Amino acid sequence: MEKLIYADNAATTPILPAALEAYRKTALEAWGNPSSLYTLGQKAKEVLEKAREEIAACIGASPREIIFTSGGSEADNQALRTGAYLGKRKGKTEILSTAFEHHAILHTLEDLGKEGFTVKLLPVGKKGVVEPKVLAEAISENTALVSVMTVNNEIGTVQPIAELAKICREKGVLFHTDAVQAVGHMEVDVKAWGVDMLSASAHKFRGPRGIGFLYARRGLVLKPVIFGGAQERNKRAGTENLAAIAGMSVALREAVSNLGKDREKMISLRERLIAGLQEIPYSCLNGDREKRNAGTVNFCFEGIEGESLLLLLDEKGVCASSGSACTSGSLDPSHVLLAIGLPAEVAHGSLRLSLSAENTEEEVDAIVAAVKDAVAFLRSISPLWESLETGKKEHWLKK
Amino acid sequence: MEKLIYADNAATTPILPAALEAYRKTALEAWGNPSSLYTLGQKAKEVLEKAREEIAACIGASPREIIFTSGGSEADNQALRTGAYLGKRKGKTEILSTAFEHHAILHTLEDLGKEGFTVKLLPVGKKGVVEPKVLAEAISENTALVSVMTVNNEIGTVQPIAELAKICREKGVLFHTDAVQAVGHMEVDVKAWGVDMLSASAHKFRGPRGIGFLYARRGLVLKPVIFGGAQERNKRAGTENLAAIAGMSVALREAVSNLGKDREKMISLRERLIAGLQEIPYSCLNGDREKRNAGTVNFCFEGIEGESLLLLLDEKGVCASSGSACTSGSLDPSHVLLAIGLPAEVAHGSLRLSLSAENTEEEVDAIVAAVKDAVAFLRSISPLWESLETGKKEHWLKK
Repeated sequence: MEKLIYADNAATTPILPAALEAYRKTALEAWGNPSSLYTLGQKAKEVLEKAREEIAACIGASPREIIFTSGGSEADNQALRTGAYLGKRKGKTEILSTAFEHHAILHTLEDLGKEGFTVKLLPVGKKGVVEPKVLAEAISENTALVSVMTVNNEIGTVQPIAELAKICREKGVLFHTDAVQAVGHMEVDVKAWGVDMLSASAHKFRGPRGIGFLYARRGLVLKPVIFGGAQERNKRAGTENLAAIAGMSVALREAVSNLGKDREKMISLRERLIAGLQEIPYSCLNGDREKRNAGTVNFCFEGIEGESLLLLLDEKGVCASSGSACTSGSLDPSHVLLAIGLPAEVAHGSLRLSLSAENTEEEVDAIVAAVKDAVAFLRSISPLWESLETGKKEHWLKK
Repeated sequence: MEKLIYADNAATTPILPAALEAYRKTALEAWGNPSSLYTLGQKAKEVLEKAREEIAACIGASPREIIFTSGGSEADNQALRTGAYLGKRKGKTEILSTAFEHHAILHTLEDLGKEGFTVKLLPVGKKGVVEPKVLAEAISENTALVSVMTVNNEIGTVQPIAELAKICREKGVLFHTDAVQAVGHMEVDVKAWGVDMLSASAHKFRGPRGIGFLYARRGLVLKPVIFGGAQERNKRAGTENLAAIAGMSVALREAVSNLGKDREKMISLRERLIAGLQEIPYSCLNGDREKRNAGTVNFCFEGIEGESLLLLLDEKGVCASSGSACTSGSLDPSHVLLAIGLPAEVAHGSLRLSLSAENTEEEVDAIVAAVKDAVAFLRSISPLWESLETGKKEHWLKK
């Protein structure tokens, strides 16, 4: 097989060699249980608290406002349950979120719905951006919590988090953001944004798997999702995954220190990719043209199946996805694309390419060429495409 | 400092070099998202399923009966919630467990108590062993779930799991065992034992931190604790921590293949340790003399504080604990020692030493000498000891 072109960084990223080395070194040298009284344990505790300080500094938080979790999904689960139960104590039982959140949010909300909470999902419009006034109008006396993701994982649109958080703050409603696609990829400042809770995952910014964190502003008492020992000040039980935490700290600091330069490069690659793919007739770029992150490009191509496209791209060494990796294997069209108003038939023909600063112009050109070939081939054998071309069915996208 | 003598293997273990290497290799070579369709992702998926087969085989389970969790605490939480909610559907709302479970069990039960479940904790007697007839008598029409740990983490007593599970099976009650201190340390056979659910944690058998698994027998539908993506057949969301899973598989297979030889060596070390410590007057070995695991020794010494003892041992390079690492820092006496009937004052003077096959006779002798010195010194400055020696207070332990 030719050299791999990895363009699925929103699914996962290759671990940074320095992060892996931090994992190895910590596992070998600071392997004591941080809860133990002896020197070996206390040394581990110091490594833990140093990592907490370093990570907190990357998002403008205090160390005490960070708790470590097994990843972004757990952090999302804990944030939602915390907000829901805190609200319930005040008699508030409604949770607002959006129709295009990650399933770690949507499925937790579904479970909270079974517990008696009312969940309302705000529309995100054709551009995939939550309008502040839509949120302002939706909040009621009964609203306990609002949760809106910072960057959508499928189409890459960036939400006006500071504005949304301000509306919530003024109305006395807790605000959480799933920042799994943002932390390490854009400037994140929890204080400037004014969010109450924020979730992050290390493997999205070249840290280890199985580790993430939840920011909860001082004074907000988290409800545990995993009960047990007194770790993380009683908010998250389980022996601390110290090696992974140390690896996460290295990866995050590296990502944050390269933000400016990486962003510039990635935007240039992204624009080259968009320009190339837009040459394909009956295609569309999904999500707002401007309010988007540096690396994610999501297209729909009429008349094809996304899954077949992925398999053809894989043959050419291009790693891409049709939507979220977490739901692949499912035959349902992406809930994100349905949320921005695409018909199911068009949503089925979607392709997500998520770049990193490691990608090159040559790779982008190779991706464009591979997609063009694959789309042309798939259309040549597609009965749906034939119906569209012979006028039996109307095109939904423009040529 | 002199060479470290690590005798706190029940708290955590140093990662096996081969497990760390498996982590590194997997993180570098099989880093694709296992949910992705492309070759890189499918290759990762294969590694994941191979590890699942290997791990399942170590406990006599089928691969489909294993789901990976972030560790033992999460597995315990999920097992209890699953049993509780399944019971509730049938109108059963009582959960039986024991007074000396790990806090991952006790604190989850406490939370389930707030949700309306009735929790009853069975007595474990002076020997720290649950009597089958006590369980049989305690089960009622309303019992949804029974959870009894395989090996107690503080005193090392082994519970008659197969007998307890049989009672539950005959009465149609679900049975879970927290086997965190057992898996990798003794023969575990879920089918022969007849348990419905079993929890394990990798870092207790020289695997990586932040990874563990939950066995759930075929047909038992787990309730997720972490909602989100479709990973682990919808029972545990979050991108799979593949490198850690591969490391866990290596560590577990190594541990299981050495069980026989390690056990013999450890029992010999344990007996040497017990004999040495029993020479200290007014001391006692906690837990049944026979029904105990190979490595754990728990003593109480009258007239001293366990915490001071640990600090003195640390000065001599001995890593030990007074009870569970997860609760150290707490000034409460061990709930385990209270459960076996020790008065709080005696329970305060406890010491847990948990050996591994890496320990030597020389180390055991050094531990005994260090403990003797430390206990003598602490008694020489202890007002409580003075009261006991001058007859102002009566000894509770025998000379």
